[in-house]
Amino acid sequence: MDDEQLSFARELAAQLRVDSIRCSTQAGSGHPTSSLSAADLMAVLLVGHLRYDWERPALAANDHLIFSKGHASPLLYSMFRAVGVVDEDELINTYRQFGSRLQGHPTPVLPWVDVATGSLGQGLPDAVGVALAGKYLDRLPFHTWILCGDSETAEGSMWEALDKASYYKLGNLTAIIDVNRLGQRGPTELEWDLERYAARVRAFGCAPVIIDGHDLAAIDQALTEARTSQDVPTVVLARTIKAKGVPEIEDENGWHGKALPPEMAERAIAALGGRSELHVTTAGPEAGEPAIAANPEAQVLLPTYEPGQKVATRAAFGAAIAALAARPEIVVIDGEVGNSTHAEEFEKVAPERYFEVFIAEQQLVATAVGVAVRGYVAFASTFAVFFSRAFDFVRMAGISQVDIRLVGSHAGVEIGQDGPSQMALEDIASLRAVHGSIVLCPADASCAVKLTAAMADTAGIVYLRTTRGAYSVLYGPEEDFPIGGSKTLRATPEDDVTLIGAGVTVHECIAAAEELAGVGVSARVIDLYSIKPLDRDTLIRACRDTGGRLVVAEDHYPEGGIGSAVLEALADADVPVRLAHLAVKDLPTSGTPAELLNAAGISARHIADAARRLVGDHD
Amino acid sequence: MDDEQLSFARELAAQLRVDSIRCSTQAGSGHPTSSLSAADLMAVLLVGHLRYDWERPALAANDHLIFSKGHASPLLYSMFRAVGVVDEDELINTYRQFGSRLQGHPTPVLPWVDVATGSLGQGLPDAVGVALAGKYLDRLPFHTWILCGDSETAEGSMWEALDKASYYKLGNLTAIIDVNRLGQRGPTELEWDLERYAARVRAFGCAPVIIDGHDLAAIDQALTEARTSQDVPTVVLARTIKAKGVPEIEDENGWHGKALPPEMAERAIAALGGRSELHVTTAGPEAGEPAIAANPEAQVLLPTYEPGQKVATRAAFGAAIAALAARPEIVVIDGEVGNSTHAEEFEKVAPERYFEVFIAEQQLVATAVGVAVRGYVAFASTFAVFFSRAFDFVRMAGISQVDIRLVGSHAGVEIGQDGPSQMALEDIASLRAVHGSIVLCPADASCAVKLTAAMADTAGIVYLRTTRGAYSVLYGPEEDFPIGGSKTLRATPEDDVTLIGAGVTVHECIAAAEELAGVGVSARVIDLYSIKPLDRDTLIRACRDTGGRLVVAEDHYPEGGIGSAVLEALADADVPVRLAHLAVKDLPTSGTPAELLNAAGISARHIADAARRLVGDHD
Repeated sequence: MDDEQLSFARELAAQLRVDSIRCSTQAGSGHPTSSLSAADLMAVLLVGHLRYDWERPALAANDHLIFSKGHASPLLYSMFRAVGVVDEDELINTYRQFGSRLQGHPTPVLPWVDVATGSLGQGLPDAVGVALAGKYLDRLPFHTWILCGDSETAEGSMWEALDKASYYKLGNLTAIIDVNRLGQRGPTELEWDLERYAARVRAFGCAPVIIDGHDLAAIDQALTEARTSQDVPTVVLARTIKAKGVPEIEDENGWHGKALPPEMAERAIAALGGRSELHVTTAGPEAGEPAIAANPEAQVLLPTYEPGQKVATRAAFGAAIAALAARPEIVVIDGEVGNSTHAEEFEKVAPERYFEVFIAEQQLVATAVGVAVRGYVAFASTFAVFFSRAFDFVRMAGISQVDIRLVGSHAGVEIGQDGPSQMALEDIASLRAVHGSIVLCPADASCAVKLTAAMADTAGIVYLRTTRGAYSVLYGPEEDFPIGGSKTLRATPEDDVTLIGAGVTVHECIAAAEELAGVGVSARVIDLYSIKPLDRDTLIRACRDTGGRLVVAEDHYPEGGIGSAVLEALADADVPVRLAHLAVKDLPTSGTPAELLNAAGISARHIADAARRLVGDHD
Repeated sequence: MDDEQLSFARELAAQLRVDSIRCSTQAGSGHPTSSLSAADLMAVLLVGHLRYDWERPALAANDHLIFSKGHASPLLYSMFRAVGVVDEDELINTYRQFGSRLQGHPTPVLPWVDVATGSLGQGLPDAVGVALAGKYLDRLPFHTWILCGDSETAEGSMWEALDKASYYKLGNLTAIIDVNRLGQRGPTELEWDLERYAARVRAFGCAPVIIDGHDLAAIDQALTEARTSQDVPTVVLARTIKAKGVPEIEDENGWHGKALPPEMAERAIAALGGRSELHVTTAGPEAGEPAIAANPEAQVLLPTYEPGQKVATRAAFGAAIAALAARPEIVVIDGEVGNSTHAEEFEKVAPERYFEVFIAEQQLVATAVGVAVRGYVAFASTFAVFFSRAFDFVRMAGISQVDIRLVGSHAGVEIGQDGPSQMALEDIASLRAVHGSIVLCPADASCAVKLTAAMADTAGIVYLRTTRGAYSVLYGPEEDFPIGGSKTLRATPEDDVTLIGAGVTVHECIAAAEELAGVGVSARVIDLYSIKPLDRDTLIRACRDTGGRLVVAEDHYPEGGIGSAVLEALADADVPVRLAHLAVKDLPTSGTPAELLNAAGISARHIADAARRLVGDHD
């Protein structure tokens, strides 16, 4: 940047400060002081470095700017005003108001925001996914800029992210850490010890650059160097002052997350030179199109299975995802268990679209989010239970309304000998509760294949739970499994009771129905492969036909799982419901799958017993 | 250690290898190769460094040994055999069998195991809590040893842990990283690049010591130095060979998590010198008792509130926890939001028992777990939504069957302007599903105070959800709030409908009941402050009395929350249930609390409307 540009950036920084103060004071809440510390950094970025066509945010070659410190939304929105996509009225009068798109923390309701932030330590991990896609999939020269807070460096996820950024040589990523020394309730751990930050960054394979975050020329130089890095991600460590520009509270504790009172705001605005109307024209992106063109119509030859074969649904997922590799937009991310989840079948046919993030599940999900932001169809896969490690990331992906696919194997007591630490027994409850989620649990290989294929074309946070063990194929390759559907495996108009399972418990329900037939009880069996959304009509019909007598058997803890999903669906239906709920009530141990299903009281014998009790009750 | 001891340790290492192979081959599963790499490390630890009275595992002065790499359970259990607390028959014939306490991954079913491990990256964070308690609470000279895997260093939680270990100057903690270069499906990220590991460790403030993990003298020297460290935690970086001792598969990929086939096992055992019966007598602990003696009978003067006052339940929690500081066993851990959660009221009166872990929620929960292992009553507090960041840690705490208290403020749309990233809307679903959890949600300050006090004496994973906003006090200080109870705020024998809420929605239910009374509908109101366990009897009575017409209003997503808890409780009760379920169905935005409660359809008006519809339906 030349002197004129630097001078303009200085004026712009003052405007960003003034606007950050104005909108938050008007709202009566928000984080102006955390915005003021970073205003110089962002002014220089806007004037001299960010390449972005604000009228065309979907342009593939645009840079990305992610506010990992989402609470600095006053600054971000003030930038949007400066580039002309948000007008003054919207900024000042709607910030944090009901109905406004300028929410307390940024979300992709705004077309220039990639991901929702506000849960600290997530913007940088997400950005790693974006930059990864840029380098390895798009092969476009866009740069990914992330504004981070210093407090959030205490989150382990930030180090998972820097580790993967260096592992994948993401020179196209620059994290700018606004080291303003103060957290919410006092000094941060490392305060202004920038050398210690630098040692950590360097040890994790990234290039630290220490600067005075209020020296515009220094910022310009750091960002210039960052952009030209080839293989090493840059971390700009900017020493800044919280509330910079409002001397009476600069570097003062006690001002986090507080709007300036109107009088203080007025004084500050006057001292900063008052309101202004500067407009920034950022450089446009370099020309270019992604190296990969999506082809949802590509011919995919899905694997097929015949009834009676024994196949683990995780193996069927692996075969299906390998077949789906024919679609160039599909990407798979593995948490170093691809040989267990069978995700690595994809690697065998499309290694260039398979990314290993090792044992780092937060980064696993974040990578999927970032890759999805770039328009790819991302599948992330690990043991079902380890998505609990990334639950906050999944939750935030729901708020981002991004489409990601999560595939978890080894769920429930069905895994056997490894014991409870490896058993997902709360995954259905937790993932059902995520906004915009879809929860699928196939009982056989044919269903797993079709659902895997359907996931690729389904929006939302789509979760597939697969079995470790091999079970009988129940359906022929011609069967369809629409999301929101179910399969009724046995039914007569005279059924006495309905048995409902998903995954492994479907097989137990079938065995129970056979046992019951031997004692003259006619049991309907429903395979509830789609747990959210769920086939309410079929359940209502079953209640009507079988006197409301339902047995739900699930390889999950009792709370919030399949039984609850069934009850929720029927809560306001005008049908009788009398549900016997078989679930894993005690803490499981090691053992064979059969022993553990039995011990948990969810095997065929228990299902048959529960059904008999229900039928007997009503005789 | 002298030469004789080193020689004994060498023989012991061979026995540990032989036993690790024997038990896993007998079981037909397990992780022998991951045990073999660490056998020399653990042999030296046992013979020369661990101070532990195996007959008295509860002894306060005992060292702690935590296998963060829980999959190396064959090695741990072989150590237990060597010290004489597990006999050969149990080790060889019950490992991984149904009914055995020698599970696939260690759990505290065994008295010498502090915490369940097996979800990688948790043993070290838990150990930080143990060592913290040792240094600052117990003031005992025990040492905390952790055996870690190299793969798990990819988890951000490991760096949160080392960061806090150095911040709190935990010289009494030594992490031994078994760098065997191979993960589950191939080489680890850093393989044998021990210098890069060392740089990371050093940057995070700990002292790295690089050794050959099969050189017993080097191990001995490293552990000796580690024990004498005063203020700096030690990380022993041991270069090891996976499957060491079984030359045909040493350092070979493809042998993770696989038992040796019987013939290979036989060859290996013979080459290692065959079975043996060595017995190790470890040094006993130094004498000493904890500096803090618990006093559950200490006089606690709880704050009181009068009906009509407006008080946020988070503020009531703060006042209550400060009062509970009179009990010396109570400890509070904060995730740098103690001024929001009001946990810092405790710091004002008992700073020596208040620990700040900054923005690192995994370590927040892990610290509570570790402190609880030492017998203290640990409360961990942050925004309700950020426990989702530590969900896997909460889950594992459930498997550890450790008692911890989690207090989450700022739940639901009730928080207002900050927007959805800060709103816990899936906390009830996810935390209900944790084994052994208790979920509490007080509607007023009096209830919050009593529940906070009750939490201190309640076993399990006890979660309290508090409000951001101040609402009317509903109950006088004389009221009791037993866990598992509820309060019926309005009731007549002629009620038409029952309104059920928890937290903020109780106030909406009361307003709705008043509105309904105006139109001749008599509504019962139940404050379901205890969501798990829940007062089934009162709900059944309400169903009987009000024709099964229930309205549940909750500030939570629809899946798995209070509505589901109610339905689950009534599923097999022989009462009519027709539930109108009001919950947050769409993604919330910013706005005032009142606007957002309205927009979500959970405010008084919506409750009254739903009640009228239910009553109308049945007229």
